[in-house]
Amino acid sequence: VIQVELETFLQVEAARVEGALQRALRELLPLVDDAVGGAIARGVTTGGKRLRPILCAEAYRACGGEGDIVDLAVSLELIHAYSLMHDDLPCMDNAPLRRGLPTPHIEFGVTATVLGGAVLIPGAVRQLRAGASRLGLSSDRTQALSEILCLAAGGQGMVGGQALDLDGEGRALGRQELDALHRGKTGALLRSALWMGGVAANASAVQVQALLHYGAAIGLAFQIADDVLDATSTEAALGKAPSDLAMDKSTYVRLLGVNGARAEARSLVAEAIRALENGGIDSSSLRLLAQFTVDRDH
Amino acid sequence: VIQVELETFLQVEAARVEGALQRALRELLPLVDDAVGGAIARGVTTGGKRLRPILCAEAYRACGGEGDIVDLAVSLELIHAYSLMHDDLPCMDNAPLRRGLPTPHIEFGVTATVLGGAVLIPGAVRQLRAGASRLGLSSDRTQALSEILCLAAGGQGMVGGQALDLDGEGRALGRQELDALHRGKTGALLRSALWMGGVAANASAVQVQALLHYGAAIGLAFQIADDVLDATSTEAALGKAPSDLAMDKSTYVRLLGVNGARAEARSLVAEAIRALENGGIDSSSLRLLAQFTVDRDH
Repeated sequence: VIQVELETFLQVEAARVEGALQRALRELLPLVDDAVGGAIARGVTTGGKRLRPILCAEAYRACGGEGDIVDLAVSLELIHAYSLMHDDLPCMDNAPLRRGLPTPHIEFGVTATVLGGAVLIPGAVRQLRAGASRLGLSSDRTQALSEILCLAAGGQGMVGGQALDLDGEGRALGRQELDALHRGKTGALLRSALWMGGVAANASAVQVQALLHYGAAIGLAFQIADDVLDATSTEAALGKAPSDLAMDKSTYVRLLGVNGARAEARSLVAEAIRALENGGIDSSSLRLLAQFTVDRDH
Repeated sequence: VIQVELETFLQVEAARVEGALQRALRELLPLVDDAVGGAIARGVTTGGKRLRPILCAEAYRACGGEGDIVDLAVSLELIHAYSLMHDDLPCMDNAPLRRGLPTPHIEFGVTATVLGGAVLIPGAVRQLRAGASRLGLSSDRTQALSEILCLAAGGQGMVGGQALDLDGEGRALGRQELDALHRGKTGALLRSALWMGGVAANASAVQVQALLHYGAAIGLAFQIADDVLDATSTEAALGKAPSDLAMDKSTYVRLLGVNGARAEARSLVAEAIRALENGGIDSSSLRLLAQFTVDRDH
């Protein structure tokens, strides 16, 4: 029953995010030429779980926010899309497929993909500002939100993680190195999603702390689950070629084994849910979303 | 006499910009690994005329601004550096040298340069905010400035121009196409430099309009002068290989001839200076800077 409920919830929320992304693209695409626009549209609209904006919106609601935050929240997805576009480039992971479709550089070229990815960064900052204005947030609060997004998108966040990832290819990373890599590469933006939701709702410091703890735990759980899926799934289920082993990447499955990795992920989910309780945040959606990070098949 | 005065002025101002860039790098570099940091440092610190922050600061002073705007103004140079790093990549202009030094991708690799360039975008937004806060600007004004910077860095600005540039390789562009290309590629950020200086100083709408007109005119004059230099200089004077002819790019020299291009640039400088007068902006520095865009040997 919980699984069905969660899937319906995710589908409804993802559809709302999709609508907001389409609005964002209507602003962005007229500013670029066809190839760059094609790369951006491919990068932004080929599905995905839309977890970051959904987490942002749920954190906002859980802390008492009552407006419609979706346009603000998709700024996170634009940054996420930029990072995937660049990560898949030949000079990085050299990935031809994502979510069952050719990656942007395969279809629109490397140049359009480098340019299009970079366009999404200032585009995301502008999207955040437009969404905050629609929500009636003060300039001070809008600036705080923009700072959080820029921090996550900057060197200390996802790009730092990606650099650690590329550095680590071909050698075996220990647990601490692997955690640091993923805290940056996927964790920074996930945590920022929750942080931004809390700040937009004027959450207390204790609530924000709880959201950050929750975000760090599910971020790592999400990555461990990814490694398990990569080690146990087929290309058809993943929508891309399972690549970790082929690329000789360090993974949690290598470090802990499949069963050990599964247990670690479950323990992190429990930690995330405890963090919410300790921070006085009562949100069945955030609890379900924590569960979802490990109980998924793609 | 004017030439000597201008050169001294530019040296003093460029040294102040250099100091602010070093402060910015001290914030940015600890967040990234050595290769990404190397690419960023190479991209940001290998000299250049620092025209954008200098124009921003002079527009600010000309409109009555009395604070120290240099930390805010270097946000423009970070965006400029990002654009050069990416433009020089093998998938774009494939340039091995800039200002007499190997370009970042030659020394630190393509991956570090793609990542490092992208890091500079959120870094520039954060730098703008820190500089605005040091200057005591209101949150509203800071947001307006951030919007201007993000607009210039986005698809409608320099990236759009770069896309037009790459599209246009190998075919002869007409005057209108060439103007549109350069209005984006170099013009957008130059205009934004002046716009930001005016907005930071709380300039009137008439003053801002005059600054934008001035910026558009010197932006185009600057590019025309670049084309003349490329057609008439040696590699030693330019610090890079003259490349337009080799790459079969459309230039103003091809359209207008060397003498015609020189005349057009001088006429644009006169237009820029008239625009200032019409807007009631009396700034000998801005007049000298307009002159400098065409009277330079590198």
